[in-house]
Amino acid sequence: MTMSARQPVEYRDASPEVRAVYDDIKRTRQVEDVNNFWKHLAHDPATLRRTWTSIKEIMAPGALDVMTKEMIYLAVSVSNGCEYCIASHGAAARKAGMSAAMFGELMAVVGMANETNRLANGYRVPVDPAFDR
Amino acid sequence: MTMSARQPVEYRDASPEVRAVYDDIKRTRQVEDVNNFWKHLAHDPATLRRTWTSIKEIMAPGALDVMTKEMIYLAVSVSNGCEYCIASHGAAARKAGMSAAMFGELMAVVGMANETNRLANGYRVPVDPAFDR
Amino acid sequence: MTMSARQPVEYRDASPEVRAVYDDIKRTRQVEDVNNFWKHLAHDPATLRRTWTSIKEIMAPGALDVMTKEMIYLAVSVSNGCEYCIASHGAAARKAGMSAAMFGELMAVVGMANETNRLANGYRVPVDPAFDR
Amino acid sequence: MTMSARQPVEYRDASPEVRAVYDDIKRTRQVEDVNNFWKHLAHDPATLRRTWTSIKEIMAPGALDVMTKEMIYLAVSVSNGCEYCIASHGAAARKAGMSAAMFGELMAVVGMANETNRLANGYRVPVDPAFDR
Amino acid sequence: MTMSARQPVEYRDASPEVRAVYDDIKRTRQVEDVNNFWKHLAHDPATLRRTWTSIKEIMAPGALDVMTKEMIYLAVSVSNGCEYCIASHGAAARKAGMSAAMFGELMAVVGMANETNRLANGYRVPVDPAFDR
Amino acid sequence: MTMSARQPVEYRDASPEVRAVYDDIKRTRQVEDVNNFWKHLAHDPATLRRTWTSIKEIMAPGALDVMTKEMIYLAVSVSNGCEYCIASHGAAARKAGMSAAMFGELMAVVGMANETNRLANGYRVPVDPAFDR
Repeated sequence: MTMSARQPVEYRDASPEVRAVYDDIKRTRQVEDVNNFWKHLAHDPATLRRTWTSIKEIMAPGALDVMTKEMIYLAVSVSNGCEYCIASHGAAARKAGMSAAMFGELMAVVGMANETNRLANGYRVPVDPAFDR
Repeated sequence: MTMSARQPVEYRDASPEVRAVYDDIKRTRQVEDVNNFWKHLAHDPATLRRTWTSIKEIMAPGALDVMTKEMIYLAVSVSNGCEYCIASHGAAARKAGMSAAMFGELMAVVGMANETNRLANGYRVPVDPAFDR
Repeated sequence: MTMSARQPVEYRDASPEVRAVYDDIKRTRQVEDVNNFWKHLAHDPATLRRTWTSIKEIMAPGALDVMTKEMIYLAVSVSNGCEYCIASHGAAARKAGMSAAMFGELMAVVGMANETNRLANGYRVPVDPAFDR
Repeated sequence: MTMSARQPVEYRDASPEVRAVYDDIKRTRQVEDVNNFWKHLAHDPATLRRTWTSIKEIMAPGALDVMTKEMIYLAVSVSNGCEYCIASHGAAARKAGMSAAMFGELMAVVGMANETNRLANGYRVPVDPAFDR
Repeated sequence: MTMSARQPVEYRDASPEVRAVYDDIKRTRQVEDVNNFWKHLAHDPATLRRTWTSIKEIMAPGALDVMTKEMIYLAVSVSNGCEYCIASHGAAARKAGMSAAMFGELMAVVGMANETNRLANGYRVPVDPAFDR
Repeated sequence: MTMSARQPVEYRDASPEVRAVYDDIKRTRQVEDVNNFWKHLAHDPATLRRTWTSIKEIMAPGALDVMTKEMIYLAVSVSNGCEYCIASHGAAARKAGMSAAMFGELMAVVGMANETNRLANGYRVPVDPAFDR
């Protein structure tokens, strides 16, 4: 990356292809500007477009509501230690209705899952036949 | 571990301390026998007791219902690649009401979160000030 | 890899360069044969030699004794979920003196570290200035 | 979290339940104030209490001494890339007696374990039957 | 998942939507049947379609050739310890021209990167200003 | 670590053993100073020497060219979320010829691999027999 690749791509400097994605994000999410994530992905317009298209489809309400999806996204991001994603999906989950109490319980589950994942690994526990039915 | 440490501790061979935990698991979960996870943890009765006490408290319904908690547990386990936990918490989530459609959406979110966690890392995206408010 | 690349390289089929490494492993560790790890690495003799040379140096007793080093190796392998390494360094730690009680305590620490690593991530806890002194 | 959820909970602002945990930490560890980790966990008093109770039990001297336990905690935290935990458990291990030479050897083992975990994965090395005895 | 969700979806049992994806995979890759990955994803036709569309776009030759892309895919899969992906993208990389010598060098780089990632974490090395230019 | 252990070891303060490594790095890479990574590793001269010797051997051109090796190194570092290594090996890959377009494609592959690694885990997809041939 050149130095400019470390800078966000602002709307005024964006190509028509990038602007079209920004416009769709703003319209879909009812926001005035897009987050830094999109402004940095914009250095690769194909990845910007593909990622937005996938996220728009995946995060739409379906069998799971938006808040549940954002909490799952947040749980994975916490487990992986991605600071940007913890901040952005934490904000998104709160916007979708996650209360402080819900966040506390989510964190307790994420912590315990990370603990028991290693207990199961270290004790080399075989899968119970009943789980495969 | 000696060879026997690779074997599950069955109820008939368990100490009173271990049996008391098994009994509480069976009563709480209304099951006839405990899973392999507990039977292997039983080689360390202190960890068996502490882990069960914590899980019993964390996984009880609260601000989040049991199915949502099990789905978060499953999402973390999938992200970490823990086969035992994927199988056991997949079974627990289905028992708590997770449909095939919900599982499909959960997996789509887990996959996308793992993808965008790395996009955020690799593009070194700075946290938006708005997320910290 | 061709099909044969999935097979271990046995001493009788090994090149003189590979045999020299096998001989040094057997002499250093006082064993009659080398583990599968080395027999598979042997498909790349440069990596076999470099890895053995590094491990021989790193795992020798120093400021830390061999059992402590093997327990650290095991703790990392459990955390990463590497089944081969859990089995092989579990065996090595027991051979170096790790008792069943020590293993139980090691696992409890590994589990708790994995839990609190995520609690620190998710709550985005800032480093205390005192730690940096 | 609201904005205040990003702030530490200081003793003067804490509920009696949280103060009781802070008091026990200070007494047990002979320190004048608790670390940021506890001050942020305090937003969820149940998790604060449960985590402290577990850590107090797990990190007490037993079959393994405190320094060895702190080094295992540090090794896992380095492997997971948790900066807060690297800083806090690095400080705790040094306080418990870890010398600079011991830290250097710990890091060498952690680095090598992370390397060979991937070599074992990538070469798909089967577990030696001898390890399972 | 019901029991059948653990089974692959074969062409003869697939819906028209799933068959259309299978046909495009077979045509694009010039293969007679699709891999297990696709046959299991087919339980969620939306994820099957979206994943294939993205992979088809991402893995096409561009600024990087197909073999380089498959080697990057393999390197990440080895690092994450995903056995299925190691096996499938190992086969794909070999089909695209990766020799045994190339694989050996790839593994050496993956191993070393995993080691130095942890050395950089553990020594808490600050980013050199020169890297950000 | 003492306070000084958090500081880089500069050439003027280094022991002859450390200076010899610094000199070899500067000569091999044709640079005027070594990166922070080496200046922090220098607190453990044995690890400094061993790590440099291994990297010098592994990263030399062979069956794979230097740019491809640096891209694999970068891909692993992005996947692991090691900020220092992302910055340093990003710079090294660009120096070795990686264009902005190549970086974009590398990131797209890394993202997709992290996604499909979890899809394969979560759907518990069995390895196709054909991959093992």
